[in-house]
Amino acid sequence: MQNRIHNFSAGPAVLPEEVLQEIQEEMISYRGHGLSVMEMSHRSKVYQGIIDDACDDVNEILSLGNEYEVLFLQGGASTQFYMIPLNLCADDKVANYVNTGAWATKALKEAEKIGKKIHIAASSKDKDFTYIPKEFSISENAAYVHITTNNTIRGTEYKIDPDTNGIPLIADMSSNIMSKPIDIKKYALIYAGAQKNIGPAGTTLVIIRKDMIDKINPGLPTMMDYNTHIDKGSMFNTPPCFAIYVTGKVIRWILNKGGLKAMAEINREKADYIYNILDNSDFYRGTVVKEDRSLMNIPFRLPSEELEKKFIAETMEMNMLNLKGHRSVGGCRASLYNSQPMKAVQDLAQFMLDFEKKNK
Amino acid sequence: MQNRIHNFSAGPAVLPEEVLQEIQEEMISYRGHGLSVMEMSHRSKVYQGIIDDACDDVNEILSLGNEYEVLFLQGGASTQFYMIPLNLCADDKVANYVNTGAWATKALKEAEKIGKKIHIAASSKDKDFTYIPKEFSISENAAYVHITTNNTIRGTEYKIDPDTNGIPLIADMSSNIMSKPIDIKKYALIYAGAQKNIGPAGTTLVIIRKDMIDKINPGLPTMMDYNTHIDKGSMFNTPPCFAIYVTGKVIRWILNKGGLKAMAEINREKADYIYNILDNSDFYRGTVVKEDRSLMNIPFRLPSEELEKKFIAETMEMNMLNLKGHRSVGGCRASLYNSQPMKAVQDLAQFMLDFEKKNK
Repeated sequence: MQNRIHNFSAGPAVLPEEVLQEIQEEMISYRGHGLSVMEMSHRSKVYQGIIDDACDDVNEILSLGNEYEVLFLQGGASTQFYMIPLNLCADDKVANYVNTGAWATKALKEAEKIGKKIHIAASSKDKDFTYIPKEFSISENAAYVHITTNNTIRGTEYKIDPDTNGIPLIADMSSNIMSKPIDIKKYALIYAGAQKNIGPAGTTLVIIRKDMIDKINPGLPTMMDYNTHIDKGSMFNTPPCFAIYVTGKVIRWILNKGGLKAMAEINREKADYIYNILDNSDFYRGTVVKEDRSLMNIPFRLPSEELEKKFIAETMEMNMLNLKGHRSVGGCRASLYNSQPMKAVQDLAQFMLDFEKKNK
Repeated sequence: MQNRIHNFSAGPAVLPEEVLQEIQEEMISYRGHGLSVMEMSHRSKVYQGIIDDACDDVNEILSLGNEYEVLFLQGGASTQFYMIPLNLCADDKVANYVNTGAWATKALKEAEKIGKKIHIAASSKDKDFTYIPKEFSISENAAYVHITTNNTIRGTEYKIDPDTNGIPLIADMSSNIMSKPIDIKKYALIYAGAQKNIGPAGTTLVIIRKDMIDKINPGLPTMMDYNTHIDKGSMFNTPPCFAIYVTGKVIRWILNKGGLKAMAEINREKADYIYNILDNSDFYRGTVVKEDRSLMNIPFRLPSEELEKKFIAETMEMNMLNLKGHRSVGGCRASLYNSQPMKAVQDLAQFMLDFEKKNK
């Protein structure tokens, strides 16, 4: 066994070691087929089986009931910021956005940039994005309401699946997808870059409720048109084969752990190790409203920037990586996605207690 | 050593076994860092080193002399079909295309679809795309001339780097990039999906001459704007980290083999094994004009479709995969990209001779 570090990266993030071991074993010859997954024609039966299994597992884990199309695309959430208004906001409609942080801001700015009418249905900008707004004021003629269910930089997270009174709800779930059960019926479209909770960078999961397909604007550029990818099962052109294969393995790993309910319990337990320290300390300080705390990304501050530097330097010596907060907000941040082992969190918690004792 | 098949896929295609072995060794812990490349923050020093090395190697192998920007994007050549006219054809200009097959047709149709004026500067459609047109008739006000340097389906290839009298030359090199030396100065923009000659599916290499940057249309969607990716060194958003890492390894492998000159000699030698059989047989038949034959994709026919079926079935029994021609043209096709081992080609040649003897 090679020595592994504890990796608290906000993404790309830690993957289950069991999954990496499987990939390693299958690298030269996938299950006796005599070639790597990276070398397979995407039109081969073996590869078709890999992507079909991944789609089936998405369907199962999120209880989609075959009422949704499951796509594996490229270009990250940033490309979805463009594709969503392009596909789903007609010229006479208004794209509604809830602004809960840097990524939500990017999403709404992109809709604006391509000439769509936008409306801010709610915002937590007034308090530096440290909370989740509970009430939305949706515009007339709304094409959709777009939310960001977990805010990676600020560390806030929706605890409920909001009600939008029949207006299609679109959610960027990049940083908390498949971390807990959701009420899937609330959502018209969900998207997530794989590289935080469900896989490596290089593929974007997009889940579209089938009634939305009729609403797609006509005449779009081929690769930017959801219809292109729906019609060809994500294989209009060569898909990011390997990233989909790895993502499929991670989703299967979550299913084998007991699915979203089990995952939510484990994620709650992991996050509590850190939040309990923040709550019982006047040394460490959480930065967001308690009720809106993310289970995925936990930002915290120490009494001084000097101590924060020292903290981060010492964690690195202890092989605990990527505990620095996002450059736009400073401080510290621990990301505890699905694949984050309990042991890593326990070690971090112990280190935090020791560090407080020594530096108080 | 696990048994490996001979893989003649047109893409995704065979990778060097040495590269796969390195990836396998580095899977759980990359060079002692204690994490997989898939788990690294793209903002980490280690990952920055990986992408920088890949860009440097592209610069070296193609003798770019730092006069070009090297980008690793997502979305395949199909997304470039959209981005190129969007970025580089102003409203009062004409996008010129040379139509040499299915992929060139898709490229020009996409320019048309987004409302650009297009002009067919040359075409080999009159003879089913079985040759490369040598003369171009470039329009007034040309924004660029777009060519497809190797035609994967039909098996034709440019043997020279065409002269376009100062009009920017743009080339889809997806299926022959880095297979031979080219006169780089002729090209204003080169792009290639990695999954044929230089890596796995999931990243698209885009090389832009720096004087083209001023010509990029203003106000484009963020992710579709070359400036976005140039300004941030392909890291505006999370790049397809693992696909770039593998592609970097394959390019380094080509450099270690002696670079493009050595690669061209090996590729010539490999292709000759098959073309010599076609030329000395009245059983097998090549399908394209001799002087325009591709060294990468060799389509051929047998005396009957029945014999073609038998041929493909028997190659599969011999663990030689993906010798079926593209579904749009039928017949057989052997793809002999950079990473195709000599031994695989020799075995195929021997099999072809044996099969001819038995079935003549």
